[in-house]
Amino acid sequence: MPERLDADVDEGLRVFFAEARLRAGAYGSHYAALWESIEHQSSGGKRIRPGLVWSAYRGFGGVDRTVVTGVALAFELLHTAFLIHDDLIDRDTVRRGVPNVAGRFAARATEFGGDARASEVWGATAAVLAGDLALSRAHREIAILPIGDDRRRALLDILDHAVFVSAAGELADVVSSLHGSTPELEGVLAMLEQKTAVYSFEAPLSAGAVLAGAPASAVAALGRFGRLAGVAFQITDDVLGVFGDPVSTGKSASADLREGKRTALIAHAAATTAWPEIRDRLGDPALDDAGASALRERLRGCGALDAAVASAAEHVTLALHELEGAEVPLQLRSELAGFAQQAIGRVR
Amino acid sequence: MPERLDADVDEGLRVFFAEARLRAGAYGSHYAALWESIEHQSSGGKRIRPGLVWSAYRGFGGVDRTVVTGVALAFELLHTAFLIHDDLIDRDTVRRGVPNVAGRFAARATEFGGDARASEVWGATAAVLAGDLALSRAHREIAILPIGDDRRRALLDILDHAVFVSAAGELADVVSSLHGSTPELEGVLAMLEQKTAVYSFEAPLSAGAVLAGAPASAVAALGRFGRLAGVAFQITDDVLGVFGDPVSTGKSASADLREGKRTALIAHAAATTAWPEIRDRLGDPALDDAGASALRERLRGCGALDAAVASAAEHVTLALHELEGAEVPLQLRSELAGFAQQAIGRVR
Repeated sequence: MPERLDADVDEGLRVFFAEARLRAGAYGSHYAALWESIEHQSSGGKRIRPGLVWSAYRGFGGVDRTVVTGVALAFELLHTAFLIHDDLIDRDTVRRGVPNVAGRFAARATEFGGDARASEVWGATAAVLAGDLALSRAHREIAILPIGDDRRRALLDILDHAVFVSAAGELADVVSSLHGSTPELEGVLAMLEQKTAVYSFEAPLSAGAVLAGAPASAVAALGRFGRLAGVAFQITDDVLGVFGDPVSTGKSASADLREGKRTALIAHAAATTAWPEIRDRLGDPALDDAGASALRERLRGCGALDAAVASAAEHVTLALHELEGAEVPLQLRSELAGFAQQAIGRVR
Repeated sequence: MPERLDADVDEGLRVFFAEARLRAGAYGSHYAALWESIEHQSSGGKRIRPGLVWSAYRGFGGVDRTVVTGVALAFELLHTAFLIHDDLIDRDTVRRGVPNVAGRFAARATEFGGDARASEVWGATAAVLAGDLALSRAHREIAILPIGDDRRRALLDILDHAVFVSAAGELADVVSSLHGSTPELEGVLAMLEQKTAVYSFEAPLSAGAVLAGAPASAVAALGRFGRLAGVAFQITDDVLGVFGDPVSTGKSASADLREGKRTALIAHAAATTAWPEIRDRLGDPALDDAGASALRERLRGCGALDAAVASAAEHVTLALHELEGAEVPLQLRSELAGFAQQAIGRVR
């Protein structure tokens, strides 16, 4: 049996989208193009969520690749839906340097003779619908699993919780940016956990474990590990968004600064005496490369970078602690430890 | 047993939203307010979809009120999700004269000290998330039904088809408004069927029948009836949007004209010699009451009103024809005939 599930997930997505495009063709070329754009959005990811489902499932002795692929697909499509709707909320038309669903449909409107207003409406419409379609399919993948009612219900509950909490986190993220004042670390960490860690780490791990029939206490421990490791991952991602290599992160190292994104890094800076000066430059849409460099130096100089990196490491320590004493097989524990270390090891 | 399921559906929604609000409270008052706004959006409707689920279920001998209520709730929440995302696409902040989810959250941003930009972002964010949450719950209501795997799978397929086709219809509606030229009747009717008739009429009727164990041919006949009656309903709704009493329709009789909404009524007008003159006034945001009255007279004078009313009646005739010869119990057939006649009887 191969080590990872990636090929199965890719094949599952390929078949699903091929069928959807065929089915969509009966409703016209625009609808088929919408499905192409969803497929495009779902490709090229790192398949982190399928990987976690698979690790937990195999770790607890699961061997049915068809069933676990269904669960992995569900979380990958949930991720696709959330990316699309997150971009819609942020009004982004580009992701990882290429046009996203909205960007592609905005361009399509122009191609078909639309003006600027039509571009905007087509883009937003496509993003709303694409997210709804991917979200619906995520639910369906779990609902149609050929497994016992109790186990399927437990998976549906995990999915329900993930959707519920992610929406809370997304709302908190948007609401918090209103309060132009000082971002607080506690609030930022809670938001990261809700918006990303639950659906991307806790839920896939719990789902894989439940599917394999793991004991409830182990499922819970894996969930707590996932939330903490997920926060560590997100803190690191945000650090890389400012200090990382644009080539490997796939995004401009000035974008988050220009946007004034409220991250753990920024919350750490807000607790230092350098904050007034940092605050004044942060979120300036006109921030140029030199300005961004200066701001990075400030963030480094005031200790915020070190504090954020330390906070990520601390979350990994806490995450690993959750696995101690839990009925988690040794092999899985070591795999998850490697995963968590790798998540924060991307910095420096 | 009571005649209708309304009280059970209302009670089901009440319990669901009470639980959701309680659960949301742990994530802050904004999230609880978001759930209140979803509940608000789901209240006050005519419960057409639950009524159809119930008619079909009871008509084929179904007696389990708990199970049928779950299916009815699913379609009511699907409707709520689609209304919210449809308003988001149209950038509407008001529905039936009161602020919708986006409108309520835009006002909330202002309350919390936000500027115009914050209002817009909060409104759009709330609408995206509220629709996602309602859509997710619709899927879940079907997925957790305590019935046999085969029957649940058939219901999931009906839901999947409804979501898939509605998205096609919504996209077609947005795309068609780009082509400022002549709206064609065939395209408008296909759009109405896809965007509304399938999820609002075909799917609830098919689902109720499947749940009761109706034969496949009867389920199919009910579905065809639903699509045709749904189109008749929608043609009539659009006629009422222009010629109806604003008090009973709950919307301005000039709004559709001002917006230039592409309806069957307008497509009929486009096939007459009066079209150039109608086209020039249609979609004028500055259209006043006198201008709207004049336009209504034109639409009446050119025969478009009569043609639209006749087209709705013809769709009802075709719909009823689908039930003839099908294994549909007489009582149900008569109930559906009454429903279809009532749908078009709202005009004049």
